[in-house]
Amino acid sequence: MSSFRDGKPLSEKVTGGKLMQDWLTARAQATPDKVALITNPGDGAHELTFAQLAGQVRQMARQWIAAGIEPGQRVAVLAITWPLTVVQLFTAMRLDCVLVPINIRLTLDEIDQQLRLAECDWLLPYGLTDTLGGLHERGHKIANLDVQRKVAKKVTLPDHDIDLSEPLAIIHTSGTSGTPKGAVLTYGNFYQSAMASAYRLGVLPEDRWLCVLPLYHVGGLSILIRSVLYGTAVDLVEKFDVDAINRKLTEEPITLVSLVPTMLYRLLEARTQPWNDQLRLVLLGGAAPSAELLQRCHDEGVPVATTYGLTEAASQVATAGPELARRKPGTVGKPLLFTQVKVVKETGGEAKPGDYGEVLVSGPTVMQGYYNNPDATDKTLKNGWLHTGDIGYLDDDGDLFLVQRRSDLIVTGGENVYPVEVEAVLRGHPAIKEVAVTGLDHPEWGQQVAAALVINDNMSVSDEDLITYCRDHLAGYKIPRHFLKVGALPQTGSGKIQRGALRELFIEQQNSHQRGDLSP
Amino acid sequence: MSSFRDGKPLSEKVTGGKLMQDWLTARAQATPDKVALITNPGDGAHELTFAQLAGQVRQMARQWIAAGIEPGQRVAVLAITWPLTVVQLFTAMRLDCVLVPINIRLTLDEIDQQLRLAECDWLLPYGLTDTLGGLHERGHKIANLDVQRKVAKKVTLPDHDIDLSEPLAIIHTSGTSGTPKGAVLTYGNFYQSAMASAYRLGVLPEDRWLCVLPLYHVGGLSILIRSVLYGTAVDLVEKFDVDAINRKLTEEPITLVSLVPTMLYRLLEARTQPWNDQLRLVLLGGAAPSAELLQRCHDEGVPVATTYGLTEAASQVATAGPELARRKPGTVGKPLLFTQVKVVKETGGEAKPGDYGEVLVSGPTVMQGYYNNPDATDKTLKNGWLHTGDIGYLDDDGDLFLVQRRSDLIVTGGENVYPVEVEAVLRGHPAIKEVAVTGLDHPEWGQQVAAALVINDNMSVSDEDLITYCRDHLAGYKIPRHFLKVGALPQTGSGKIQRGALRELFIEQQNSHQRGDLSP
Repeated sequence: MSSFRDGKPLSEKVTGGKLMQDWLTARAQATPDKVALITNPGDGAHELTFAQLAGQVRQMARQWIAAGIEPGQRVAVLAITWPLTVVQLFTAMRLDCVLVPINIRLTLDEIDQQLRLAECDWLLPYGLTDTLGGLHERGHKIANLDVQRKVAKKVTLPDHDIDLSEPLAIIHTSGTSGTPKGAVLTYGNFYQSAMASAYRLGVLPEDRWLCVLPLYHVGGLSILIRSVLYGTAVDLVEKFDVDAINRKLTEEPITLVSLVPTMLYRLLEARTQPWNDQLRLVLLGGAAPSAELLQRCHDEGVPVATTYGLTEAASQVATAGPELARRKPGTVGKPLLFTQVKVVKETGGEAKPGDYGEVLVSGPTVMQGYYNNPDATDKTLKNGWLHTGDIGYLDDDGDLFLVQRRSDLIVTGGENVYPVEVEAVLRGHPAIKEVAVTGLDHPEWGQQVAAALVINDNMSVSDEDLITYCRDHLAGYKIPRHFLKVGALPQTGSGKIQRGALRELFIEQQNSHQRGDLSP
Repeated sequence: MSSFRDGKPLSEKVTGGKLMQDWLTARAQATPDKVALITNPGDGAHELTFAQLAGQVRQMARQWIAAGIEPGQRVAVLAITWPLTVVQLFTAMRLDCVLVPINIRLTLDEIDQQLRLAECDWLLPYGLTDTLGGLHERGHKIANLDVQRKVAKKVTLPDHDIDLSEPLAIIHTSGTSGTPKGAVLTYGNFYQSAMASAYRLGVLPEDRWLCVLPLYHVGGLSILIRSVLYGTAVDLVEKFDVDAINRKLTEEPITLVSLVPTMLYRLLEARTQPWNDQLRLVLLGGAAPSAELLQRCHDEGVPVATTYGLTEAASQVATAGPELARRKPGTVGKPLLFTQVKVVKETGGEAKPGDYGEVLVSGPTVMQGYYNNPDATDKTLKNGWLHTGDIGYLDDDGDLFLVQRRSDLIVTGGENVYPVEVEAVLRGHPAIKEVAVTGLDHPEWGQQVAAALVINDNMSVSDEDLITYCRDHLAGYKIPRHFLKVGALPQTGSGKIQRGALRELFIEQQNSHQRGDLSP
């Protein structure tokens, strides 16, 4: 092999002697005139081609440079589901910045905490003026883009190629500790995820993916990234308006849509028209769908693919296509190509088929680690395996079933809520002596947050006061929908909360204590 | 970024801390029960799942090890279009050997030359017993697999992971010099090619690719590799039997088929039935289709995608989908994602849209180089650009048109023939003083090889004698179909053959000299 130049980094070898072009630039060269983005402002749908999107990104990139944003910096965006967030995502990629998409439903305190944890260099100034003002007061640097528009015109964009091993985004997940952790996802993670998803679900040049998931979640963000790699269109919907989305799914050539069970339930409840013929797949994830929901989809001929995904694995880990999802209700199928899953017993060692255990994931989509959090990283990534904390089993065919998400995780309307975080907030209230939070099953939301409280002697507090108190500290979807005041919390001998018994208490009392739904 | 372990090779980072699983092993885990291969022996079609194919590969890998074949060695296979070649390909991948697929239509001399050029460590002993015997006599080592079957049962297969920067195959191409060159294609080349092809043509889990192209060409080989990555089926047909293939294209759920123009022409000529509804795409490459052929496809509603591919770029460089191929007859569209094409003038510098020039290609699918041939590598790969020698232009939209394959290349029935190679053989004949070879247009074969000869004074030779002489030195498709004896060859002042004038001569004389077609 004497004729080959050795010693070059693999990225150069893989990409033919150079690093990889940034994805939107490459895509705009490959299919400039194809539709990239369908946006839905008040006055009807607008289309943007890949060339147009790339043009907007180049313009934005000049503004960022003029404002002082530098390669390698971490840039936070309030990730509203609108076209600007798409432009911001690919501007970060164009300039080699790391995107930190912020959940816009969080409180000021929660956002402040994430910006500090991710050591964000910049916050981008769009939308949510009050939030931005509050964050500015807390010392976060907001990029001044408007003033720099004129300067930006003179900026020459540097060439930029991608190194697949570099971080693309930091996405925060709540953790069992109650403190968010920033999962660092690389270009390579998303690149491999897009490819493996295409090979599992299929991809067609005429595909159009309806994106109603939030862009601060990996599920929404990965739709944008995949579609640019594929050269397919995304129809981006800011608000989950059931009727408007049902209308799209009847009248427009949507071929794919990602939904959480709550969304699908609400769409089915409201539907009066048939689904369009082009719809290839409803990718259903974020929480376990009920058997009833799956059955209903099968009865109505909705092509549902069930998936198990994780922020820490750049979205899909395993996905069952419609045929398998129908034949084996409840499974999420086999891991995607190059992803490996094993189930390990509490006592160590791999579980036999059918036996429960913790789900471990390894492969090219698994994150680098948690940002600036070696302890959490070491606890989660061991010998190349991601320890999900989720409980599941593999059947004899190797198809995966999830039994329970991370021990005490509550999933409500597709959002994850950790009891410990809600408990910590409530514990700060002067009237509360003890608190335990759990999730109660709910047909529409999957689960709802519920808190059992022991009140200090001689004190009292109303549910309304508790909600008001929570609003200052917790995103709306984390606030308990049910409060139950008890004399003592059900505990094990060793003082651990018995969450099973806790749920029983709520079920007994549910009728008398039930409050109206708050939109999570 | 203190929490990340740095200094790891990119391949490890990209694939989550380890090298990549070999593709068939990964695929057999992801979709064990899907159909991988449909074979067509005399007694009807047989199906093989990915799990079954992987099982056969494991068994074959044990035999190879027992026979003494070691990782990193170059293993030549007589690449007949049959299932065994598929097993051999993935066995080479499983054991980290480099596959050298041999064109079975070559003469013993030609094969001998390629085995020496590629420094093959082994030749595998299947089919073509006479050829094998001849090669053995010339000193090539033939692996003894039959005797090793018993020993093989006790062999433990080593774990093997893939490094994308390592060579997967060496595929020989003829060159302008007349000596074959072995294009070294890496795992990364094929990996990126498969991905970019999926994103251009689409891929669906139910796809079934009809493979009638030879497996010693990159076009056929890449169908096998792509399909294992995709998890889709290949229907493998050994012989190009027009009626049998037409029947398949009517009755069976074939969704994709790769053809050279000659094959498509012959299928259209013989078709009496409609094409099946599932057929998504006819990928037409290997040679420029005539305008008439394209028009006929459009008239008959055949979904033709036109492609420009090269061995040196692991197959497709640019591909136009059916809509574009119909709208702009003759174009091969834009380069695939991450592949870049530029057209340079003879005087240097990029050609303006519409202006002819040499087509240069760069990107992740471009070969490492020619095996053990630094001179040819340096002439072909300059500053990351592959100099194809093909002449073409880009239109105002950036769509590529090929005007002429490598200056004097003849493409007959999808096979490349270099005049210089045929001329060198004929020049060795005692009766021949001067010779010039060119290609003549032909509706079915695209081009046919034609030789103009100046015979030595006082000597004579018949066409039949010349053909017999050629048979000893040239593969059948390289043997001229037309001979023309002339007093002098048309030359420029500087002594270069005027190939345009040469063709004129043949056209003038064609009626009187035309011989019956030989199947190339």
